[in-house]
Amino acid sequence: MVLVSPRNPLNIGAVARAMANFGFSHLTVVDPYEPHWREARSAVGAPELLANACEVTSLREAVRDSTLVLGTGTLTHRKPEQPVVRLDQLAPHIMHELEQPATRIALVFGPEKHGLTREDLSFCHHLVEIPTDPCQPSMNLGQAAAVCLYEIAVRSGIIAEAAAHSKLAGTARPTSGNLDVLASLIQQVMLASNYSPANMQAANQHDLRLMLRRLNLNPADQRRTLGLFRRIFRRLDSSHFKKPGVP
Amino acid sequence: MVLVSPRNPLNIGAVARAMANFGFSHLTVVDPYEPHWREARSAVGAPELLANACEVTSLREAVRDSTLVLGTGTLTHRKPEQPVVRLDQLAPHIMHELEQPATRIALVFGPEKHGLTREDLSFCHHLVEIPTDPCQPSMNLGQAAAVCLYEIAVRSGIIAEAAAHSKLAGTARPTSGNLDVLASLIQQVMLASNYSPANMQAANQHDLRLMLRRLNLNPADQRRTLGLFRRIFRRLDSSHFKKPGVP
Repeated sequence: MVLVSPRNPLNIGAVARAMANFGFSHLTVVDPYEPHWREARSAVGAPELLANACEVTSLREAVRDSTLVLGTGTLTHRKPEQPVVRLDQLAPHIMHELEQPATRIALVFGPEKHGLTREDLSFCHHLVEIPTDPCQPSMNLGQAAAVCLYEIAVRSGIIAEAAAHSKLAGTARPTSGNLDVLASLIQQVMLASNYSPANMQAANQHDLRLMLRRLNLNPADQRRTLGLFRRIFRRLDSSHFKKPGVP
Repeated sequence: MVLVSPRNPLNIGAVARAMANFGFSHLTVVDPYEPHWREARSAVGAPELLANACEVTSLREAVRDSTLVLGTGTLTHRKPEQPVVRLDQLAPHIMHELEQPATRIALVFGPEKHGLTREDLSFCHHLVEIPTDPCQPSMNLGQAAAVCLYEIAVRSGIIAEAAAHSKLAGTARPTSGNLDVLASLIQQVMLASNYSPANMQAANQHDLRLMLRRLNLNPADQRRTLGLFRRIFRRLDSSHFKKPGVP
């Protein structure tokens, strides 16, 4: 479970409690508001997993080791750029993921006010939507987390499955960190090959992240793609890379 | 949705918000702690359904018009006296209930500290159990409500079904109020017939409530049973009723 910039210490505590209720233990918090984060961790009766939570500065870092990253949110104010899965139809996706060796799934919640940004969502394979009443779609963070964890724990049997699979060696599905390495190399190639005009570089990076997460590369695909782009990069005239704005 | 003696105004607000999120509107509160109840109702951003909530003094009154009463809780500290249904297996029960004409389902939550009492549960047809980790079974009230309402709304399609059925006339299934009338008459008969020793009267009343809820009486059954016990009561020597301790 990953919380991006949570504010309210009561919400942080509520998320931790729901995790304990449904048998989840790994919490990562991205860039929390420090006073409230300290308050949540030191609250009386705070579940132990809060004390063991990781604190990182970016979502990229938080999901580095994850093979399936699930963003959460409502679709009221945005047009999603990745596949949307309704929470009640999520179980087959999770069970399929758990059939692969050495998988690690991250469920990501955004800040209370506005949820995950478009940039945050570009690190997600799927956007999970909780089906709510259109008149009142926005859920409280602690309650949204409880509903998602209930659904995953009960319908995917994720606790038992994850334990059984953690013994398998090797990583078949690329982790988010693997994809970042690949994306970074491809971006260098884009620059070196003068693919991206300066004003399009951020947008192209964004689209590249989304695309790599759609592709579902296996280990051989990853090796081949990395090898290919390394070769391309070496062959390109490095002067183009140093002066990317010059045609 | 029925809340029995809720204490924490934040929890009351959270329950109301989850109800709005999943399209439920009728909230009844039993014997709330008045200052906190006022605070919850007047909170900024409180859903409208809180302003329209009913306040009653007993659970008996709260579920008078309900045809299926679902208590909630964990089974850690008690041996249940009525059928236990796991939340993820509740949908068929609700859908079956909704196939009857003019049904009304009540979902009942107890106070934060100890949950529903044995007495409270004697007004419930089923005990709904949320499957949680045995190491941390006790859920926060607002989160437990969110999880139950999500499951019911999504898996039973209760919102659409309830609207479709509310147009049907007549009541097939006995309401909790019907059962109370019958129970009260049977208790009078028990006294008049000197069935219950004084020290067993409360226990017998309790068992009677549970039994009537197990029986699933149809309207003809109700009429027959009421008619029979009225007749019995009239025929019994009223002196026994006036002096129930005398053999």
